[in-house]
Amino acid sequence: MAVRAKAASQELAAVRTGAKNRWLLAAASALETQSAEVLAANAEDVAAAPGYGLNAATIDRLELTPARIAAAADGLRQVAALPDPVGEVREGGVRPNGLQVLKVGVPLGVVFFIYESRPNVTADAAALCVKSGNAVILRGGKEAIHTNTALHRLIAAELAAAGLPADAVQLVPTTDREAVGHLLKLGDWIDLAIPRGGESLIRRVAREATMPVLKHYDGNCHVYVDAAADLGMAERIVVNAKCQRPGVCNAAESLLVHAAVADTFLPRVGAALRGRGVEIRGCDETRRLIPGTTPATDADFRAEFLDLILSVKVVADLDAAVRHIAAYGSKHTDAIVTADLAAARRFVQLVDSAAVMVNASTRFNDGFELGLGAEIGISTDKFHARGPCGLRELTTYKYVVTGDGQIRE
Amino acid sequence: MAVRAKAASQELAAVRTGAKNRWLLAAASALETQSAEVLAANAEDVAAAPGYGLNAATIDRLELTPARIAAAADGLRQVAALPDPVGEVREGGVRPNGLQVLKVGVPLGVVFFIYESRPNVTADAAALCVKSGNAVILRGGKEAIHTNTALHRLIAAELAAAGLPADAVQLVPTTDREAVGHLLKLGDWIDLAIPRGGESLIRRVAREATMPVLKHYDGNCHVYVDAAADLGMAERIVVNAKCQRPGVCNAAESLLVHAAVADTFLPRVGAALRGRGVEIRGCDETRRLIPGTTPATDADFRAEFLDLILSVKVVADLDAAVRHIAAYGSKHTDAIVTADLAAARRFVQLVDSAAVMVNASTRFNDGFELGLGAEIGISTDKFHARGPCGLRELTTYKYVVTGDGQIRE
Repeated sequence: MAVRAKAASQELAAVRTGAKNRWLLAAASALETQSAEVLAANAEDVAAAPGYGLNAATIDRLELTPARIAAAADGLRQVAALPDPVGEVREGGVRPNGLQVLKVGVPLGVVFFIYESRPNVTADAAALCVKSGNAVILRGGKEAIHTNTALHRLIAAELAAAGLPADAVQLVPTTDREAVGHLLKLGDWIDLAIPRGGESLIRRVAREATMPVLKHYDGNCHVYVDAAADLGMAERIVVNAKCQRPGVCNAAESLLVHAAVADTFLPRVGAALRGRGVEIRGCDETRRLIPGTTPATDADFRAEFLDLILSVKVVADLDAAVRHIAAYGSKHTDAIVTADLAAARRFVQLVDSAAVMVNASTRFNDGFELGLGAEIGISTDKFHARGPCGLRELTTYKYVVTGDGQIRE
Repeated sequence: MAVRAKAASQELAAVRTGAKNRWLLAAASALETQSAEVLAANAEDVAAAPGYGLNAATIDRLELTPARIAAAADGLRQVAALPDPVGEVREGGVRPNGLQVLKVGVPLGVVFFIYESRPNVTADAAALCVKSGNAVILRGGKEAIHTNTALHRLIAAELAAAGLPADAVQLVPTTDREAVGHLLKLGDWIDLAIPRGGESLIRRVAREATMPVLKHYDGNCHVYVDAAADLGMAERIVVNAKCQRPGVCNAAESLLVHAAVADTFLPRVGAALRGRGVEIRGCDETRRLIPGTTPATDADFRAEFLDLILSVKVVADLDAAVRHIAAYGSKHTDAIVTADLAAARRFVQLVDSAAVMVNASTRFNDGFELGLGAEIGISTDKFHARGPCGLRELTTYKYVVTGDGQIRE
């Protein structure tokens, strides 16, 4: 598979944008016109799900509906509408000796994409990889194997007609753990591994991979409410960051409140959060101000709950908040709420996270929201891309240097 | 050392450009005014060099002179004059909901720089790492330990006075192999390893490192002379790429000649190369056209000679040249000489190297020549930076998102 993917990637690098877009639009139509086939396959997976120990929430993520298939098709059309990062001239100029130097976007090559449960990711990941000129090897979870096989068959069937290599999108046909280990050894053929799922999957991929890995382990995201915060704004941001979609990596897991506003802010935000069904686990000061709060352990301050639970701590000042975030955070997304410009500048400079938000919800750290058009994942590493990764982050560049006979003296 | 470097890097990230430049200029002056100390230490290394098995060429690389120290000081002043990549706003805009999204340059953190022989690299690497806001741990070769210790003492002594943390530049005080292995395990404290030296050193670092590695293994660079080449230009480029400095990674190691011009070009370039003392190892056709040519083995076509030796092959057409480069090259630097625009476009698109040159010498793949101002190394990998890496390639970015209370609906 990896050898065929590498060969396909060499063809894909030279394919025109029009061909890639034709494939995306044809695949979108195929998803809609042949949705019955996908829904039937999905029903098999849903029926088998309790046997894999899936609960109601994870079965809901697994289940496809006509509306969800339409959304997936729409996602493909959106990727078709995005600019092609391949061939994009990122920088350029002419040197004093007349050499023209261009930095031109080129694909990475082959992407190995490993993901759990949610089958809508199948079409999404294939679209982003191919639009950015990469061949992709998809490896979904065993719980979704029938759905993924049907989805892959539909979208791969449209490749040849659009003029793309048939091996541009492959699906690992087996669901055994060993297959992933074998593919992770193939650093000479696969240029990038992207794991999406639980932390144990991601740690395993990072440990075994012989190629670069685009990843984040978890998102223990903080909202720090400064002494100079507009407390109404702070309450809206905390409630949104925690409750709007608690199961995702950019949801807030921890609230830090400056001691000077704790007395007024904590009872108020405590009531708002309780009204939304949030369990609060707090420090002693928090427990005094929000009666009935569970005592927070050190593990609570480290936790990515992915649930309606929030750890809360009162801090002496901004620097104490920054130190807490450095010690407990995931370098993913952290926010300050403040009207004080100096405080905002200091927080932005000192917090070493992929995204730092000022007076905005942590939920905005997302490829669509930040204007990348789409995202294949979020990176908390510092090498290559950081934060949400879209089409451009799935490419690298080459220097193209053109002259008329220049030599070095 | 790594823990101290991490602490220093956190301070360095917030230091102003002026302080970094003050240090660079003070270190340059110290190198010049205290050069006697460095020269005495260097004399010790040079005296011990034959005991390490160094030959005349490598002893020449090791030896410092007042002129070479002045050049190192000048290098520090040039880095001071370069723009600071930290805080640079690389992209930015306002989303429809009013959120301002900026991508802002930030340092990587701690760089572990491992190098052989040439002691002028000590000041250079320290300058580039610190100017880009990173703390650096330097590890030079055992042959240069006295020189590196003296250089490090001089430049580190100027850190505090300029307002920089004393641990911003550290030198590994021992020269045993095990020390490198220990440091390569510290991926939690060290953000990047950069090996500069022979291929075995680089392979060892890549194998053992638990952090990203910025590297190239070798530079088997090609010049392809197309059917439509200006043969006078082709001769000048081939001679320059091979002979101007044969011991460096962007020197040409292999010449590919289109069959249509082999009869006229090979005798002519053969004479020019022989006149410069170059040994030619060629295919049968080359041997027919340049009598006295050594037969080339497969190993010759793979070799990075780093010497006045050139492998030569006659190819049927441009696509055969591209296939040869894909099979034997290093993805470092490859050049085409042609007057045919379609041939130039095809070569640029199909050759998967960090730098592709059209009608210019391979020797231009260099940070200074391509306008980066300086370089810490050249990468042939596709993740993070590719080609010559200067100040900006020693940084990453963070998203800074500023609003006035935006929440996600």
